[in-house]
Amino acid sequence: MHDLQHLATIERIKDTTNRTNFLRLDMNESPEGLPQEFIENIKKDITASFLATYPNDEPFLQTLARFLNVSRENLCATNGSDMAIRYCFELFGREGSTFVSVYPTFEMYAVYCNIFRLKHHKILYRDDLTIDTHAILQSITDDVSIVALLNPNNPIGNVYSENEVEIIIKKAKDIGAIVIIDEAYYGFAPQGFLPFALEHENVIVIRTFSKLFALASLRLGFVCAHPKIIAFFQKIMPTFEVNALALLFGQRLLENHAIIESLQQTQQQGRKTLIQLLQQAHYDYQIMFGNYLFIRPHSDVATLVQKLKEQNILIKTYRHAILKDMIRVTTGSPKTMQHFFNIFHQIDNQTTRNH
Amino acid sequence: MHDLQHLATIERIKDTTNRTNFLRLDMNESPEGLPQEFIENIKKDITASFLATYPNDEPFLQTLARFLNVSRENLCATNGSDMAIRYCFELFGREGSTFVSVYPTFEMYAVYCNIFRLKHHKILYRDDLTIDTHAILQSITDDVSIVALLNPNNPIGNVYSENEVEIIIKKAKDIGAIVIIDEAYYGFAPQGFLPFALEHENVIVIRTFSKLFALASLRLGFVCAHPKIIAFFQKIMPTFEVNALALLFGQRLLENHAIIESLQQTQQQGRKTLIQLLQQAHYDYQIMFGNYLFIRPHSDVATLVQKLKEQNILIKTYRHAILKDMIRVTTGSPKTMQHFFNIFHQIDNQTTRNH
Repeated sequence: MHDLQHLATIERIKDTTNRTNFLRLDMNESPEGLPQEFIENIKKDITASFLATYPNDEPFLQTLARFLNVSRENLCATNGSDMAIRYCFELFGREGSTFVSVYPTFEMYAVYCNIFRLKHHKILYRDDLTIDTHAILQSITDDVSIVALLNPNNPIGNVYSENEVEIIIKKAKDIGAIVIIDEAYYGFAPQGFLPFALEHENVIVIRTFSKLFALASLRLGFVCAHPKIIAFFQKIMPTFEVNALALLFGQRLLENHAIIESLQQTQQQGRKTLIQLLQQAHYDYQIMFGNYLFIRPHSDVATLVQKLKEQNILIKTYRHAILKDMIRVTTGSPKTMQHFFNIFHQIDNQTTRNH
Repeated sequence: MHDLQHLATIERIKDTTNRTNFLRLDMNESPEGLPQEFIENIKKDITASFLATYPNDEPFLQTLARFLNVSRENLCATNGSDMAIRYCFELFGREGSTFVSVYPTFEMYAVYCNIFRLKHHKILYRDDLTIDTHAILQSITDDVSIVALLNPNNPIGNVYSENEVEIIIKKAKDIGAIVIIDEAYYGFAPQGFLPFALEHENVIVIRTFSKLFALASLRLGFVCAHPKIIAFFQKIMPTFEVNALALLFGQRLLENHAIIESLQQTQQQGRKTLIQLLQQAHYDYQIMFGNYLFIRPHSDVATLVQKLKEQNILIKTYRHAILKDMIRVTTGSPKTMQHFFNIFHQIDNQTTRNH
């Protein structure tokens, strides 16, 4: 049972700019995400009887195991990767112990620290938005129960080398801590670290179908870890954790490599397009990995964000000192990026001139 | 954090006969569940952009509030009512305290007692499948943190009177315990107890869209309780608890009273049909409320279940002494009930003759 008095003090604010996976633009001509034909094909399976039947995650998990070339026993599906993170804290987050991550990072880690009463040891970014991995390593002391490596991190898309991940895992293992490798933005990173989850009993890799796979509405995430860890997840999860439509869309997508490749290519081309446009217009920007980048506009950030919102373009900003003069843009197709840039550039110019 | 050694001892067996909401029959002619036209209409909204966007439960919750004539602040949506129960235990199930329910009941209550380390005080059914509500009342002592009243109970469909529920709530309130009123089978009961949730701060009403509303695949449940209780749920829930398709189907269904009435009527007619057939063939049966009933076959239960399975009819049985000579049949449309009875009666006769 949670300490209700403590819970009452936790602030939970729903971030609505987080709701769109892509820039919310009028994208009738070139919709982002999955091909409509692929979607229509799956819709044929949605019958009254399908809807009335409880989900069975077995076919999805078997397809996923083949796709990842791991054993079925290494996997479990969760209601979004958010729930995977939550179950990690529930299972391995000792009350009063310390959780280690870089900062800023995905905001739910701080929320779960709060709920499950862990101290959050934050490894701050340097001013040039790089990370001191040595500082992560040094922070792994006896009081730590969970270390999270987001690869790439969100909102700043730094990645880790294989060697860095390996020494962090070993240090964590020595003191009995779990390492979460959060690969939510896996498709936008140079490499993933699944093999570590197969090799080490203290490593939990988490991925989602919400980002590259464009299925955020359906809530589909999964955990890859040692069968012993998976067994613990299964003990505490409800009988039907993931809905049947998420499982159906997920399975069909894994069987369709061409679509996955195409999603990745569109993303890469879109990023190239945006970078070219930013360079031509002499903008300062920060791009690493993930499906996002930071742009330093010429005009005032708050005014710009408001004006973009009036144009139905939702942009995220951060209060952290190193990010506060920048806007974070989610990247999409070349067409969307061109469209975004046109509006952004125009507003930014106008606003600068007016001041 | 859970006690991992303790967790390891918990047995979790997925019950696959539970997966079908209706008798799994060849139902091409008269499919059970929602009208296909209603489904096709909703499918039009499933676009690439819809799928890629994170869920927003606000429109659903506002529709639900109007439908139930309660305030929006009394409600939160959960990933199936299973998760609603889980969050109740997480929030209010004091470790080492006692949980009170009748027995047998929905199996997840025992699982959650195990996970969250509560003692399960079981009020056993009498041999005639009735319940001693006085025994429930007497069991509510200082060590109790949660009482669950399933109305109707599952698998035995007894219901409670308003007066019974009221005195149980008051007794629980006196000792600081929460009362879960589990109305998963609400549409199959003579009355619901929502007003108690609005009146008392220790009452949590839980409902699901999996049963009457025939949306088990999508995982949609909700909690109705005092805003103070709802605020606690919101503290510990993930940002996106329910998927967008569940919310969309749920909302449209609530706006379509004719379909809901029709689902209820079909169910009532189906039950009448089955009862007539059972009476004509001189079967002993137990029927109360819920979308299920118990039949005492003339032949051996294990053999019968196996033979029905070969005909693709999945039937649930229970090991409890009072239920072990019976089969539990989920009720559906008159056509499905007629079809079931024909096969059941034939197999039962044959098996009896062969012995």
